[in-house]
Amino acid sequence: MADLFTTIITSPLARKAGVPQPTKLRRYTPGDPLVEGPVLVAGGGHFDTSLANRLEQAGAQVGTALEELDGRLGALVLDLSAAADPSDLVALHAIGAPAVKRLAKNARVVVLGTDPATLTDVSHIAAQRALEGFTRSLGKELRFGATANLVLATAADPALAESGVWSAVEFFLSGRSAYVDGQVVRVGDAASPSAADPLRPLAGKVAVVTGAARGIGAEIAAVLARDGATVIAVDVPQAGESLAKVANDVRGTALQLDVTTEDAGRRILEHATSRHGSLDIVVHNAGILRDKLFVNMSDDKWAAVLNVNLRSIIRMNETFLGGGGLGEGGRIVCLSSIAGIAGNRGQTNYAASKAGVIGIVEALEGQVRDRGITVNAVAPGFIETEMTKSVPFATREVGRRSNSLQQGGLPKDVAETIAWLAQPGAAAVNGQVLRVCGQSLLGA
Amino acid sequence: MADLFTTIITSPLARKAGVPQPTKLRRYTPGDPLVEGPVLVAGGGHFDTSLANRLEQAGAQVGTALEELDGRLGALVLDLSAAADPSDLVALHAIGAPAVKRLAKNARVVVLGTDPATLTDVSHIAAQRALEGFTRSLGKELRFGATANLVLATAADPALAESGVWSAVEFFLSGRSAYVDGQVVRVGDAASPSAADPLRPLAGKVAVVTGAARGIGAEIAAVLARDGATVIAVDVPQAGESLAKVANDVRGTALQLDVTTEDAGRRILEHATSRHGSLDIVVHNAGILRDKLFVNMSDDKWAAVLNVNLRSIIRMNETFLGGGGLGEGGRIVCLSSIAGIAGNRGQTNYAASKAGVIGIVEALEGQVRDRGITVNAVAPGFIETEMTKSVPFATREVGRRSNSLQQGGLPKDVAETIAWLAQPGAAAVNGQVLRVCGQSLLGA
Repeated sequence: MADLFTTIITSPLARKAGVPQPTKLRRYTPGDPLVEGPVLVAGGGHFDTSLANRLEQAGAQVGTALEELDGRLGALVLDLSAAADPSDLVALHAIGAPAVKRLAKNARVVVLGTDPATLTDVSHIAAQRALEGFTRSLGKELRFGATANLVLATAADPALAESGVWSAVEFFLSGRSAYVDGQVVRVGDAASPSAADPLRPLAGKVAVVTGAARGIGAEIAAVLARDGATVIAVDVPQAGESLAKVANDVRGTALQLDVTTEDAGRRILEHATSRHGSLDIVVHNAGILRDKLFVNMSDDKWAAVLNVNLRSIIRMNETFLGGGGLGEGGRIVCLSSIAGIAGNRGQTNYAASKAGVIGIVEALEGQVRDRGITVNAVAPGFIETEMTKSVPFATREVGRRSNSLQQGGLPKDVAETIAWLAQPGAAAVNGQVLRVCGQSLLGA
Repeated sequence: MADLFTTIITSPLARKAGVPQPTKLRRYTPGDPLVEGPVLVAGGGHFDTSLANRLEQAGAQVGTALEELDGRLGALVLDLSAAADPSDLVALHAIGAPAVKRLAKNARVVVLGTDPATLTDVSHIAAQRALEGFTRSLGKELRFGATANLVLATAADPALAESGVWSAVEFFLSGRSAYVDGQVVRVGDAASPSAADPLRPLAGKVAVVTGAARGIGAEIAAVLARDGATVIAVDVPQAGESLAKVANDVRGTALQLDVTTEDAGRRILEHATSRHGSLDIVVHNAGILRDKLFVNMSDDKWAAVLNVNLRSIIRMNETFLGGGGLGEGGRIVCLSSIAGIAGNRGQTNYAASKAGVIGIVEALEGQVRDRGITVNAVAPGFIETEMTKSVPFATREVGRRSNSLQQGGLPKDVAETIAWLAQPGAAAVNGQVLRVCGQSLLGA
């Protein structure tokens, strides 16, 4: 336990001592190369050969042994999916340690494993479950914007799982995942078609974003539109002016609407189908905060947060998942929060609602799978917004530093993760809660 | 996010400013009353009536409305197991807030819910999942040694689940759970017999504790013996002297043994059956640390930790769960760690092994259920031991303060949780990983 808290202690002190600012993260711009620098793909798992081929097709310089590659590595893909016993993890260190030493700034480590929940043998499960402890630890050791994440593939036929694994690996290697660190994504065996136009993976899709008038919601609208989607920006009538501006900027349409009204789902669906011909992507971003200690909170504050952040989503989803709603390829992405995972002082109502959102995702996963639809959530950590600007300096400074990347994330980081989950290629990612938090120390 | 980091910031400063030391926690001594002060049991769930009866039988003063009770509450049991929709959570605040205001020092809040994994309806799952976000937040708001935990019962027949729920509630109300805060325990429907002698719930059981020569292991041996078990203390030959002392103190037997040897399980089982007639309880506590950054770690350090902390357990369990091993009522408890959940800098090997231990528990849960055996893990946070004493002051101080109870735990706290899991009454608790961390801020 000795080192668990070193980050908290050293960061603020280090800053006062004039230590340089945190690394500027490599963030995605369409047309960027997938990674910056050569990629080592190794480990002898089920996917390393096909991934090496995919990476070469994507224009990366790929090697299967460290000696083949010159200079600093842009990424390391460690495929341990075939490890069936803890002793098979020796390769993880033997291959990984010298390669990690050679990582470039903003490099990526992606560990591949087999989802323990799809295995039966104890040694096998233990070995695969160990990868999570390894990856989360490595994330805490890496510096200079480098991240480490774990992709767990279903134990079903690797040939079926391969396209889904590639989509997740591509996300983690790219600048889209800049602020996603120390996380685990499970991938099923749904076929995951590559985008016809990699620069516009959401071309032809109609997306609705609630709470789109400002902050993270406006950024989600912008990123989905950049990726080719037609965006319907939804917010309350009071936010009409900024909503119109967002809709205009993304060349989409605006819909003034209170998500808690009984017919909110129907009105969104009608707007989508009548104005744009279909509805394909739903981003449940609208939410409110009414922070107060539980003992001092009014009944109204308690109920309002649960109503807006949780009940409205359940009700709208009934429409979206009913007849005439989302079809094959449909996507629902909900905004949860670290508070919903770890709990937070002063936010019993908010944390309850955001934990409930995780329940929605877990509940719907199985119901939508056979229909080619996915339901996932993202859980942001400390994101730099107007809201966090109002936090007192010292609290804010600790908040933004208490993660492996030692900085706050941007609304764009949340939006990029959502945009990936909305892609046709992410068809095999379902029922997941993906934190966008720079590997915040906080958790459950 | 505003308040997420307040605890970190304020605690060390507060201490310098001369603020009083953290509350001395109420810890269990045989013969103690279950709770100190009246207990409010409310919520209208499946269990509140029977729990109120059980509590009265246990000698507590029980009320079903706040007005019935005078003075500060020793505990609040909020039964929301029947909440089927987020709107049903209004009662949580209406009943809970005024009651929380009345909590005594070292009080307990136990929230009861229905395990979302055993439900199908979306609104139902969302409401029940929300309880976790609520409980974890409340845990962060409570002061003066009070804790909040969540017990989730299977949705199967409440009459079958009731005895298991009672065992968990009893644990959380008692001083045994002093350092367990903000946690979730799932309870199945296995019948959970009450102990014939509540002062010696492990009477007649034979328990083996590995790594028992010192620290947490020695304390586990002491607590199991106090609760009536015959204890076999196991450790390596080099620790022979302290091992003999521990075995002597608990009136058990000592077995010098390296757990990584091929025949370790067989030798333990033979010792148990030949000397004591059976083996009932196994506590896999032996473990080693070989901390080093991943890039600087030797192959030996990597492999040794995985071998001792993970492989040895898998191998010994094969013997314990094979013919002539544990019978009905058998218990296996493994030591995991917060590092295995959240990852830790400098501990890629240790965290991998402790995550792997969680895999063992998840793998064995289903295999042992029909045999009346349970396999669980505890995951300690910052525990005050010889090891943590060597940590530099500032790091240690932040470490022990970065949890809701704002202090480090004691080896006894880990031991008490293990002793509960070993009880016949905990038969319905299986496949769980229970953190003993004072609700550490750290997590995944």
